[in-house]
Amino acid sequence: MTGSLVIVGTGPGKPELMTPATRAALAQATDLVGYGLYLDRVIPMRDGQCRHASDNRVELERARQALTLAAEGRTVAVVSGGDPGVFAMAAAVFEALESGDPAWRMLDIRVEPGVTAMLAAAAEVGAPLGGDFCAISLSDNLKSWATIERRLKAAAEADFVIALYNPASKARPHQLGDAFALLRTVKEAETLVLLVRAAGTSEAQVIATTLAEADATQADMRTLVIVGASTTRRVGRWIYTPRGARP
Amino acid sequence: MTGSLVIVGTGPGKPELMTPATRAALAQATDLVGYGLYLDRVIPMRDGQCRHASDNRVELERARQALTLAAEGRTVAVVSGGDPGVFAMAAAVFEALESGDPAWRMLDIRVEPGVTAMLAAAAEVGAPLGGDFCAISLSDNLKSWATIERRLKAAAEADFVIALYNPASKARPHQLGDAFALLRTVKEAETLVLLVRAAGTSEAQVIATTLAEADATQADMRTLVIVGASTTRRVGRWIYTPRGARP
Repeated sequence: MTGSLVIVGTGPGKPELMTPATRAALAQATDLVGYGLYLDRVIPMRDGQCRHASDNRVELERARQALTLAAEGRTVAVVSGGDPGVFAMAAAVFEALESGDPAWRMLDIRVEPGVTAMLAAAAEVGAPLGGDFCAISLSDNLKSWATIERRLKAAAEADFVIALYNPASKARPHQLGDAFALLRTVKEAETLVLLVRAAGTSEAQVIATTLAEADATQADMRTLVIVGASTTRRVGRWIYTPRGARP
Repeated sequence: MTGSLVIVGTGPGKPELMTPATRAALAQATDLVGYGLYLDRVIPMRDGQCRHASDNRVELERARQALTLAAEGRTVAVVSGGDPGVFAMAAAVFEALESGDPAWRMLDIRVEPGVTAMLAAAAEVGAPLGGDFCAISLSDNLKSWATIERRLKAAAEADFVIALYNPASKARPHQLGDAFALLRTVKEAETLVLLVRAAGTSEAQVIATTLAEADATQADMRTLVIVGASTTRRVGRWIYTPRGARP
């Protein structure tokens, strides 16, 4: 098989947060496969490139389409936002590879890392991920809510900083409120909570509040939520988590 | 105060994994402050730029120096590898800000996100961070080993993928072996373990093994360790964690 497939992430949104390696991979591709919003960030498309846009909720189908194109000899780029390996398209491609045509395993497949949303969100406010942290997707489309609850509880009890991806969508309006309610049973009311919308874009907005007062209805699909550790705190206009214990 | 301070990360190593935003911030700085190894990646330095290199273990002192230079009116860039907010210089700068001259809080301080080591390591092998995951630094210079053990145990019990930063150094040769021993008491022997050295550089090396067979002496300061979740698995030449439960 002569085709190839590269899985890239366009970063949080600003063109200057997309890596040159990703830019080069996009320039070389004959076919770009992805959610329309992310493909729109890839401008200009060069002459002769084919664009295959799809809805945001059909990752596996999109992954199969990309592998099929690569198997036909095309130079395919699968385009995610952020980093493709963090709650994005890379895992979907390998799921499709596992369940698909065994010949696909001979393809040249690689992943280009990118700046994932929690890093851009953290940079907007200071250094809230300065200590040990975890990243949890609140989407229960592919895993049970019980699994998510178990992870939230473990992360709270072990005092990790917690980054919450996919906190809410129109189809899932209740998850973030339920997560806050669970976290309130373990963590202090004064724990800092950040709702960072459109981090790493020119439209970034930050709500810095406490766990007691955090309002889940202020988050949407473009929001990344960070729930601090016990040591996370303010200094001047910034919020950060020290590297060790409180001095 | 007219000075400014930007905290940047040069990414995992390859110049094409440094964001254009970071490159621009470095070009504008009058003063670059950082560990010599990371400053060496910033080439070429422009005429009139001052370089302030230091040892890797004096983060707080380096942060104070950077804030002092900014307070003198300089345009300062503090340079880390990876992402500056993940086990790097950003938290140290805010620690120094908190304990330092109150006037420093009037400075223009910002953080530029970058590609942190675990994302580059994951990309080398596929998508092992495809599910919920956590990041733990094994350095006990600034936190107790008991805290680290508590977090390792919680992460293992809740079936997170676990990324281990700072797994070993000459001064701390035993931590990774101790961490593997603890994880073996909770996780299956067949759990996949990745030791990725110099990820995101031209010298990247991957050891893919199991928790039962993982050899801590194969890791050094440049190694990022990923311990899989129960669902993390091989497909062809790649390793990935599916987005949900095993189908």
